[in-house]
Amino acid sequence: MKKKIKKVNAAILIIGNEILSGRTQDKNIAFISNWLNSNCGISVAEVRIIPDIEKIISRNILLLSKKFHYVFTTGGIGPTHDDITAQSISKAFKVRYEYHKEAYSILEKYYGKKKFNDGRKKMAKMPRGAKLIYNPSSAAPGFITKNVISLPGVPSILNSMIDNCKRYLIKGLKVQSKTISLYTVESNISKQLGQIQNKYKKFVDIGSYPFFRLGKIGVSIVTRSNSLAKLKSVNKDLLKLVKSKKIKILKI
Amino acid sequence: MKKKIKKVNAAILIIGNEILSGRTQDKNIAFISNWLNSNCGISVAEVRIIPDIEKIISRNILLLSKKFHYVFTTGGIGPTHDDITAQSISKAFKVRYEYHKEAYSILEKYYGKKKFNDGRKKMAKMPRGAKLIYNPSSAAPGFITKNVISLPGVPSILNSMIDNCKRYLIKGLKVQSKTISLYTVESNISKQLGQIQNKYKKFVDIGSYPFFRLGKIGVSIVTRSNSLAKLKSVNKDLLKLVKSKKIKILKI
Repeated sequence: MKKKIKKVNAAILIIGNEILSGRTQDKNIAFISNWLNSNCGISVAEVRIIPDIEKIISRNILLLSKKFHYVFTTGGIGPTHDDITAQSISKAFKVRYEYHKEAYSILEKYYGKKKFNDGRKKMAKMPRGAKLIYNPSSAAPGFITKNVISLPGVPSILNSMIDNCKRYLIKGLKVQSKTISLYTVESNISKQLGQIQNKYKKFVDIGSYPFFRLGKIGVSIVTRSNSLAKLKSVNKDLLKLVKSKKIKILKI
Repeated sequence: MKKKIKKVNAAILIIGNEILSGRTQDKNIAFISNWLNSNCGISVAEVRIIPDIEKIISRNILLLSKKFHYVFTTGGIGPTHDDITAQSISKAFKVRYEYHKEAYSILEKYYGKKKFNDGRKKMAKMPRGAKLIYNPSSAAPGFITKNVISLPGVPSILNSMIDNCKRYLIKGLKVQSKTISLYTVESNISKQLGQIQNKYKKFVDIGSYPFFRLGKIGVSIVTRSNSLAKLKSVNKDLLKLVKSKKIKILKI
């Protein structure tokens, strides 16, 4: 068994003018973040959304790959001129941008020799030394270069591939979380909540999120920790507070 | 009339563990980006999502406020311990974090003197010199500090406030866009698309986005430019390509 290291983190780098311009609503951030925590105990520590510009992509790849254990990129690995993720990663790491033999033969087989045109061939070009992440939906593989994992932008295809990333990832301790939803307003409990957060400073993160449901105002208190014991303990304190304030619980 | 400057850009800084962890699906990025372009001709050039950690917030505020004309922050301006946007901006700009007189009196009036507790008072604390962005939904104002505009994280409240940001923003040239949706695959047109992009290099951005609709595969070609004339011209070229390839148009 591999030794579990305590905290493993990742950044997500969304590459695409369509997300920046607001034309497309991103769905990959929440999906990747949830998958990473549930399956690998990896926490997403930062997300950036950047345009399809080579210099900007390269600079961010280099910076984030130094700062975090893993970087997940989405978008820019298709056949068109605006798909420049692979060449930008090659530039960042100063390695050749070239045909990946296995990717080439996967794509050639998928399309057939006659229909394997230049656009499709482009999807087999990767940074030298990249390893493949297989794609069960539409053949064109993702790839991992050093600690940078490149996935497509189309959510349904990304979702179908993500399990194939697992073999490349070191596992960390999963962040456990618990949510208590209350019919109250934040300012009714903010002081005591701050005190409880202070008590569990380094072990538990307490988040407070207002919501509106069926015309009523409420607050969800989300506690997150690597330790189940601490999580239970903080939730006991929270329930004491709720009882003392006579707050109605919506969901626990 | 104010002279229009050509390109005005902005960054969005989403502050919140709940977005990073995947618990909450962000809806503010697309909304702000669309609003900025349609109403002010301002383009979003970068987005970052970061955790509720003072040092990280301050560092990003400083960096992004130097790099872009405006920075829009969302989240972290409520009454609880995890709401630390205002104090982090104060730290970044080395100004005092103190009660804003007008914000204080707005909130005191809204809640009534008796119910104006410490949590609610906290929402009147801002970086010295901040100007208010009024909140027609729930009273607690947003604020602008230098070129940094701070809005709440709850989408319905943010949406109700955004028009009140307009008076603080210099207007740029709106990016016009046009979308042609085709029943084809990207690799069928990728070569010619690249050539057309090359022809309009500095004036038009051409994006290519695959979609699936009713079991059929298609591609949306999105063209974006500050110049309507160039946009018309590039779309003429695109339609020529579509005709020559005998591609069926879904939507134009």
